[in-house]
Amino acid sequence: MDVGGTKIAAALVSPDGTTRHVLTADTPDRRAPSDQVEQIVVDLVGRLSGGRRVPVGIGAAGFVDSAGTTVRFSPHVNWCEEPVAERLTDRLGMPVTLDNDANAAGWAEYMYGAGHGEARLIFVGLGTGIGGALIYDGLIERGAHGMAGEFGHMNVVPGGRECPCGQRGCWERYCSGTALIAEAVDLLATSGPAGDRLRTKHAKDASWLTGRNIAQLARHGDPGAAQILHAAGIWLGRGLSALAAALDPGRIVIGGGLSGLGDVLLEPARLELARTLAGGTHRPLLPVMAGALGPHAGVIGAADLARRAAEAIPGR
Amino acid sequence: MDVGGTKIAAALVSPDGTTRHVLTADTPDRRAPSDQVEQIVVDLVGRLSGGRRVPVGIGAAGFVDSAGTTVRFSPHVNWCEEPVAERLTDRLGMPVTLDNDANAAGWAEYMYGAGHGEARLIFVGLGTGIGGALIYDGLIERGAHGMAGEFGHMNVVPGGRECPCGQRGCWERYCSGTALIAEAVDLLATSGPAGDRLRTKHAKDASWLTGRNIAQLARHGDPGAAQILHAAGIWLGRGLSALAAALDPGRIVIGGGLSGLGDVLLEPARLELARTLAGGTHRPLLPVMAGALGPHAGVIGAADLARRAAEAIPGR
Repeated sequence: MDVGGTKIAAALVSPDGTTRHVLTADTPDRRAPSDQVEQIVVDLVGRLSGGRRVPVGIGAAGFVDSAGTTVRFSPHVNWCEEPVAERLTDRLGMPVTLDNDANAAGWAEYMYGAGHGEARLIFVGLGTGIGGALIYDGLIERGAHGMAGEFGHMNVVPGGRECPCGQRGCWERYCSGTALIAEAVDLLATSGPAGDRLRTKHAKDASWLTGRNIAQLARHGDPGAAQILHAAGIWLGRGLSALAAALDPGRIVIGGGLSGLGDVLLEPARLELARTLAGGTHRPLLPVMAGALGPHAGVIGAADLARRAAEAIPGR
Repeated sequence: MDVGGTKIAAALVSPDGTTRHVLTADTPDRRAPSDQVEQIVVDLVGRLSGGRRVPVGIGAAGFVDSAGTTVRFSPHVNWCEEPVAERLTDRLGMPVTLDNDANAAGWAEYMYGAGHGEARLIFVGLGTGIGGALIYDGLIERGAHGMAGEFGHMNVVPGGRECPCGQRGCWERYCSGTALIAEAVDLLATSGPAGDRLRTKHAKDASWLTGRNIAQLARHGDPGAAQILHAAGIWLGRGLSALAAALDPGRIVIGGGLSGLGDVLLEPARLELARTLAGGTHRPLLPVMAGALGPHAGVIGAADLARRAAEAIPGR
């Protein structure tokens, strides 16, 4: 299962990482009772399992404690200090493994995807915000309290754009689905011709302005949308540069919805990283690759982590 | 040995981490031939060893490859792709272990000091610039190319102060010995009374403006100098916040020359860290402590790493 801010996805996953019977549901509103998400999880597991007892892995968009029992808090789901794993284990009668969604997606890319075999892997998931994972020596590095990998809230602009987390200038305000919208709003405020098509679309339908639509417009060659993605790519590179200075990883894999944009986003990021990384001329070029597993990385990783926990294989 | 940008320190170090016979020399000018530093190392080892064959550890202010053989480059010492370990092993006839100076100091704090026993330790060394080390599960995390821990060159202000590394806005331009000078220059440009004493000192002797002198003035209660340290402390907290978001460490130890300032610097840093860390209310307060070993941390750590290498104890 992948419990995200907008969608809940579930699938049966084979030990080779392939998915079968992918089901999705909308994530309930953040104000809905917390057990509403759990009811959806129970329903989806019931439909997929056909009555068999299978290990259930959940990647959740939130801060999960290092024991994998509790969601500390989530900006998108109404889970706050909720003992989700235990409660679902009781309700399902199946072993439930809980992890952060970016940890699950990063683990999938490490096991089956673009990060395979890398001893020092950084995974950056670009969706509504930025999630992240550190996979070192074949283990997810969770930090002292399960909160490692929250790259999205590294400050990149002092006093910059407001973030729902309460701070200003967090990285995810400059490179994520919502960042594309913020950039588009800035572009709409100008009078230059680059924003013409965006202005037309937006004037017809104010709800048109989504990361997905901006990305699609860029794919169709619109210069304004391309400019927005280029700006996001440069911010991506700057954040990666800070991570690389601190950690000197062997590879960086970019996942999440925005990674589907490929080189339109990643090429400016690579150039900015190469331009700004300290001692860059004294080390090999750091590979920055798009994830290989697409939108299902989260469910694949969550399933593999659950299987490992059930079979007591190291990894979790 | 601790080969820094301004001083070279050497000492005999006991296995319990205590130093005897500390000797120092000035680091030769960056334009001096690279073997001039090596000659100083050979002389100091000769004076300390008294003819005995002892393991020699060197912490060097520069990028050291992960094998501990070569200084890739150094901003302060004329070593660029120099196979320092091998050359000194040949000249001394003793086993030589080479590491980054912040790794050595961080290791000492982990073994004998304020980081003792912490499974996820971040060490930040505040000197002329900012050095850093990650000590995880009792091992120095060196990164894929030996360059992990270069926290000083994480960008904190886009287009900010110029850095000798060629970038702008690196963290060390806002919180280090040279950052204190930059802040003081800004203060001198104002007409407020807080800068009065600094202006007088500076007018009498332009070379007075050093990090050490500013810190001393702050200890004597000068409001302008205190303001400078407070600003540096806030920047310290901001950078720590980014590191903590990414890594979720169990403890942070601050070493290097500036750490001797203690709470004047660390208290604003702790407050800014608590204020800005993502999910801060859902995790225990992260301890930020001054190093316990003072200026000798570097030689103590380098010696212990050399002893471990000679006795094949894990740690390097």
